Amino acid sequence: MNTSEIRKRFGDAIRAERLNLGISQEELAFRCGLHRTYIGSAERGERNVSLENIVKIAETCGISASTLLENAGL
Amino acid sequence: MNTSEIRKRFGDAIRAERLNLGISQEELAFRCGLHRTYIGSAERGERNVSLENIVKIAETCGISASTLLENAGL
Repeated sequence: MNTSEIRKRFGDAIRAERLNLGISQEELAFRCGLHRTYIGSAERGERNVSLENIVKIAETCGISASTLLENAGL
Repeated sequence: MNTSEIRKRFGDAIRAERLNLGISQEELAFRCGLHRTYIGSAERGERNVSLENIVKIAETCGISASTLLENAGL
């Protein structure tokens, strides 16, 4: 799988979880302790998110990191 | 979960898959197209591995990235 496809799938999975929570990108970033623009760029597939932030985002969404990746088809 | 625990769990999961394949750290790095010292440092929990490399390592081990994270308890 190429790198942009990986990032895109992961971004879509974050967006789906965020919309499930009914919160903005900025609010999710705030809850994760990340910069306010971070989630937006991750959802657009612009970021190669690191393991620690994958776990942080997943935990904030109330799911495990493995489930977040599974939802992304990764 | 703190960051060193996350990295440690992930490193242990990589090591388990590598030993299952019966190959060296250098050989797994070579198959992944990563620097020869990369897998060693990841197994020792010294690296905050990015999404793209998580997928690359998992694919090379013949499992999905979500399964690799699940094996790590993440």
